[in-house]
Amino acid sequence: MSQDTHKVSLQLRSLVRGSGELELSLVELPVPEPGPDEVLVRIEAAPLNPSDLGLLFGAADMTTARSAGTDARPVVTAKIPDGLMRAMAARVDVSMPVGNEGAGIVIAAGASAEAQALLGRTVAAFGGAMYSQHRCVKAAQCLPLPPGTTAAEGASCFVNPLTALGMVETMRLEGHSALVHTAAASNLGQMLNRLCLEDGIGLVNVVRSAGQAELLRSQGAKHVCISTAPSFTQDLTDAIAATGATIAFDAVGGGRLAGQLLACMEAALTRSGGEYQRYGSTTHKQVYIYGALDTGPTELKRNFGAAWGIGGWLLPGFLQRVGPETTQRLQLRVLAGLKTTFASRYTKVVSLAEALSLEEIAVYGRRSTGAKYLVNPNKGGVA
Amino acid sequence: MSQDTHKVSLQLRSLVRGSGELELSLVELPVPEPGPDEVLVRIEAAPLNPSDLGLLFGAADMTTARSAGTDARPVVTAKIPDGLMRAMAARVDVSMPVGNEGAGIVIAAGASAEAQALLGRTVAAFGGAMYSQHRCVKAAQCLPLPPGTTAAEGASCFVNPLTALGMVETMRLEGHSALVHTAAASNLGQMLNRLCLEDGIGLVNVVRSAGQAELLRSQGAKHVCISTAPSFTQDLTDAIAATGATIAFDAVGGGRLAGQLLACMEAALTRSGGEYQRYGSTTHKQVYIYGALDTGPTELKRNFGAAWGIGGWLLPGFLQRVGPETTQRLQLRVLAGLKTTFASRYTKVVSLAEALSLEEIAVYGRRSTGAKYLVNPNKGGVA
Repeated sequence: MSQDTHKVSLQLRSLVRGSGELELSLVELPVPEPGPDEVLVRIEAAPLNPSDLGLLFGAADMTTARSAGTDARPVVTAKIPDGLMRAMAARVDVSMPVGNEGAGIVIAAGASAEAQALLGRTVAAFGGAMYSQHRCVKAAQCLPLPPGTTAAEGASCFVNPLTALGMVETMRLEGHSALVHTAAASNLGQMLNRLCLEDGIGLVNVVRSAGQAELLRSQGAKHVCISTAPSFTQDLTDAIAATGATIAFDAVGGGRLAGQLLACMEAALTRSGGEYQRYGSTTHKQVYIYGALDTGPTELKRNFGAAWGIGGWLLPGFLQRVGPETTQRLQLRVLAGLKTTFASRYTKVVSLAEALSLEEIAVYGRRSTGAKYLVNPNKGGVA
Repeated sequence: MSQDTHKVSLQLRSLVRGSGELELSLVELPVPEPGPDEVLVRIEAAPLNPSDLGLLFGAADMTTARSAGTDARPVVTAKIPDGLMRAMAARVDVSMPVGNEGAGIVIAAGASAEAQALLGRTVAAFGGAMYSQHRCVKAAQCLPLPPGTTAAEGASCFVNPLTALGMVETMRLEGHSALVHTAAASNLGQMLNRLCLEDGIGLVNVVRSAGQAELLRSQGAKHVCISTAPSFTQDLTDAIAATGATIAFDAVGGGRLAGQLLACMEAALTRSGGEYQRYGSTTHKQVYIYGALDTGPTELKRNFGAAWGIGGWLLPGFLQRVGPETTQRLQLRVLAGLKTTFASRYTKVVSLAEALSLEEIAVYGRRSTGAKYLVNPNKGGVA
């Protein structure tokens, strides 16, 4: 073991109590020992993705958050509304580590050749519990970063890049040739825009504000529609007609947006007029909901003919669908574009303790902003 | 040509005027002459299916219906709400014949051997304009009924039987092993129940009233859930758990039912407890909406994990998906069971003029009742 390992290692935990309370805290664990085919990674960068916030906050109302403990060991509690406790049943009293992906340095390795080969390398990994100072990972699960790549640059190798690539792959697999993306000014949205520009794929970006539209246009986006504009329906129909998009990926989930996407696709398809078709266009129109920026109910007016579908879309399900060969091809593409197409930007780097300050939670917890945080569990040295 | 053809033939028409008015009337047309590969059918039976009502009434509010004209040539008008005229744009001022399917006697035939072979036969046909005293149809489109089968017995050979078979085929094609059906006391629902009993397929019947539940149980249905009962969610979850149903066909469309079906499937799948899965069960749950008994918006709470889909389902799209060989196989099965599994029952037989009486419209137009009408365009002799 390297001298860089310590007896105690911090890990961020999220706990739902049967009393209806969420508790976030840091626990002290022994530094884990890697098994034969494992490596020990000192995590130096792990993004706070929207998908992490779901596990971190559960169904808690974070406007009720209070802080106790010390600056170094904060304990945040928040109330979970009664009606939402049922969905939390399976995680009551289970203290859960958080953090889907991250990157760091391999500071110890098991006996296997595969593990030993990674000693000293900066690697990215996917698999939970990344808001930890130390994390044992199977060597086979590590993605060694190209020389000259920092942990911060490699922290978001999986979730956003594979999601953007997965959307484009799904579009192709299901026979569509252009796509619509909502919440398009997000880190993921900007990445998808770069990817579509690179591959010459028609993309309609739906955003909420003129500022977000300007941001995307400054990055070369051709079709940007502002959902709060009075002309939104017309703008969206025009952009869909121009690109031929018949599939959309929606991060909002609740409200009327998903239905509007289908209705505008239908309007674009039937715009040319012609004979009355009582069941509308026979071209299949698809919306995949992959997020829940609006956790309210989805409302569908069903004013979009009969050839439509809406469904859930998640990265793990997609990767399972396409299999390991395609997954590997996509990962190699991510590595090749890690500093360009698939680069992530962060507004702030925080330590584990800082990630649990009410001030920071109020910023990164506002899921609909462009604020994106990176956690460095070893910021300021090891506890 | 047979002496049974006449110079004038009545046809029911539905017309949407730009002024926002629906007009239903009977038009007098010359009896059509069959082309070489066509036959002339004297239509004696054509059902008023829910799918016909959509074309017949359009978006009109039938509570505003008024009648003019004579008993023999009634003219019914009704108001179309302003907000719904947009969806009617493509049919404004286009006088449309109605009636998806029907049966009758071939009274004249074109020169081709295929057409000639049908002379004098009782045939069923699918293809619109069946609320007509005479209808020319391609010989290849006719389904000659087995000897001893009346036109009334063969009038509903296509829509309901192929829809019931199509649901079961779709279930199998998409990897499910049992299904849920809503509005299950309908003619179609009773047929699906008979089909599932015959094939040993688990079926959960969702109905609105205890009377409807009793009706289905008296026909051997094992799982019947009453959507208005306080215990509905529990009953539905139990029935879904018992059958393993992960696909549903929903005729209601609007409201919360489609989402409830998914939520109860998810509850049945995760009922056994076990480890907390943040995105719910990974088993795909599907609802197909094939009707619109409730034309209001569909509301989805999305409390059913991430592996779900909702979409439109229509018979023509299904038949196109499976192709002509499967379609023919299904049609042969329908013919074999026309007096048993695939028999339809009607509450009344009406003439074309009677179909346009306000009293009858008030009965068969109430789409959610069990009342099913058969139109005999030649009832009481030819005009």
